[in-house]
Amino acid sequence: MLTFQKALELINMEIQHIDYPKEPGSLYEPMAYLLTLNGKRIRPVFTLLACNLYKEDVNEAVPMAVAWEIFHNFTLMHDDVMDKAAMRRGNPTVHQKWNENTAILSGDAMLILAYMYLAKSSSGHLKSLLDLFSDTASGICQGQEYDMQFENRPDVTENEYVEMIRLKTAILLGASLKSGAMIGGASEKDCNRLYDVGINLGLAFQIQDDLLDVFGDPLIFGKKIGSDILCNKKTYLLVNALSTSGGKEKKELLFWLNAHDKGPEKIKAVTDLYTRLHVKEKAREKMNQYYDKAIQAFQSIDVEENKKSVLMNLADELMDRES
Amino acid sequence: MLTFQKALELINMEIQHIDYPKEPGSLYEPMAYLLTLNGKRIRPVFTLLACNLYKEDVNEAVPMAVAWEIFHNFTLMHDDVMDKAAMRRGNPTVHQKWNENTAILSGDAMLILAYMYLAKSSSGHLKSLLDLFSDTASGICQGQEYDMQFENRPDVTENEYVEMIRLKTAILLGASLKSGAMIGGASEKDCNRLYDVGINLGLAFQIQDDLLDVFGDPLIFGKKIGSDILCNKKTYLLVNALSTSGGKEKKELLFWLNAHDKGPEKIKAVTDLYTRLHVKEKAREKMNQYYDKAIQAFQSIDVEENKKSVLMNLADELMDRES
Repeated sequence: MLTFQKALELINMEIQHIDYPKEPGSLYEPMAYLLTLNGKRIRPVFTLLACNLYKEDVNEAVPMAVAWEIFHNFTLMHDDVMDKAAMRRGNPTVHQKWNENTAILSGDAMLILAYMYLAKSSSGHLKSLLDLFSDTASGICQGQEYDMQFENRPDVTENEYVEMIRLKTAILLGASLKSGAMIGGASEKDCNRLYDVGINLGLAFQIQDDLLDVFGDPLIFGKKIGSDILCNKKTYLLVNALSTSGGKEKKELLFWLNAHDKGPEKIKAVTDLYTRLHVKEKAREKMNQYYDKAIQAFQSIDVEENKKSVLMNLADELMDRES
Repeated sequence: MLTFQKALELINMEIQHIDYPKEPGSLYEPMAYLLTLNGKRIRPVFTLLACNLYKEDVNEAVPMAVAWEIFHNFTLMHDDVMDKAAMRRGNPTVHQKWNENTAILSGDAMLILAYMYLAKSSSGHLKSLLDLFSDTASGICQGQEYDMQFENRPDVTENEYVEMIRLKTAILLGASLKSGAMIGGASEKDCNRLYDVGINLGLAFQIQDDLLDVFGDPLIFGKKIGSDILCNKKTYLLVNALSTSGGKEKKELLFWLNAHDKGPEKIKAVTDLYTRLHVKEKAREKMNQYYDKAIQAFQSIDVEENKKSVLMNLADELMDRES
């Protein structure tokens, strides 16, 4: 049975040997830079582990797994341009280290490279993997567009927020698992169940991200606490606070949303408001609901219980993470 | 036999009925905007006409043809951002009409949409079309990167320039023709010959573009005469003038390249220099060489002569164009 460690090694080995066209370097160096910046490789590992539920030899799933990782990094490269982000995984973003045009063009070439890896999959699965990949990629663009639109909207509902994170982050986890199952030869039913597992895990992980940004342990959390608050990012917490508060608290919240020059003071005030409005508890509850749904879907798949432990443990660990 | 007009109708019909995801509009409207801005549709028409050389019914080639057109428009959307271009086909560019982030993200979604169209091709050709498409798309990114690099290099050689336009524009024409031939069932030899036809036509067309910008008829040419000169664009003419001039003329040319605030005066001076250096004649000779090569390659394909007339006439017309 494939361990997490072994899956990670298979992925990293393949990523180390990506055959980038050598010229011009300014087009390909940014891809290699971003791809080797210590990503967690959750998506490609999901693909291999899902494949391994149905098939001992997962080599056939490696190109597809790497395609997801390349694709994920493409979205980071372009999202960082759009969000004008300076740092990524503790290092300068591509458009900071090079420039914006390089980040746009390298990102384009990276999306194409992801399709090149997908195309290495065996011909029997090619068409269905291609459709899954394009549908997922297209949905993620929709999610990013909603995310940008939400920046300027004070009236985002919880349902709209959930739909945005479903598109922007959850469907990629769903598709990573599903593609592995497809290559492993799973039934259509199991493929769809694993897609649901990924969707619900993705939603749970994103709400967890939102929580960690505000309530994480500053010593363990890799990024600065409160950065979402500082830039008024529409998180589950903020959307919930905006929709459930009224009177004095709503007024206070709107005041702080309009305060752009207050650093630690704003973080403290908004965090206090979140506490008074119990949005922390509500977010935790929602997160746990999605996680439970994921586990239920995972339990329903038609695979011997002992084979499920690696993916199960990985999901548990990801849910327990503090950074 | 398929006429040019009929091929164009098939393409435009399909483009009018593209099933864009409806939400969010800001992601999809820019795609529809650019795709219906009066493009010449040369690439998809090439695909259908090449298919028709080998097969009466070209319907199977329509998705691939449309994929090339969508892809081409994706490159325009992103190139316009990178080049900070304000106008495209006489209308505001997408990043002007919307904003830069929309142009980046809609472009990404458009590249994915192109792959979705490609994926509608019949399964027998899917893998080879996918490889051709990704290789072409990747090469075009390389070409764009070279083009941007050349802006800041005074020492671009003619060979480097030709390699850049081969990647940036010619391989797309080659691949458009080749893919149509593949779907039509042509031999590998003919597929490769048609690729060569496209490459050489593409090189000839680009040099013709370079010539028209300077020596075109202002009343017929759609854009302003001399715009390449104003922005020091590395064209066949400029690269040639820089590499063949010496002494007084070289000095004069470098002076004008550094003159950024002189409009009509700069255009007149550089055009005069081009005339004195005979770069117009050299460019025409080069263009004709490529065109002749294209025609030779076309004549060598294994298809009855009478079937070749539509593509032959189209190439002739494109070569005679003044706008």
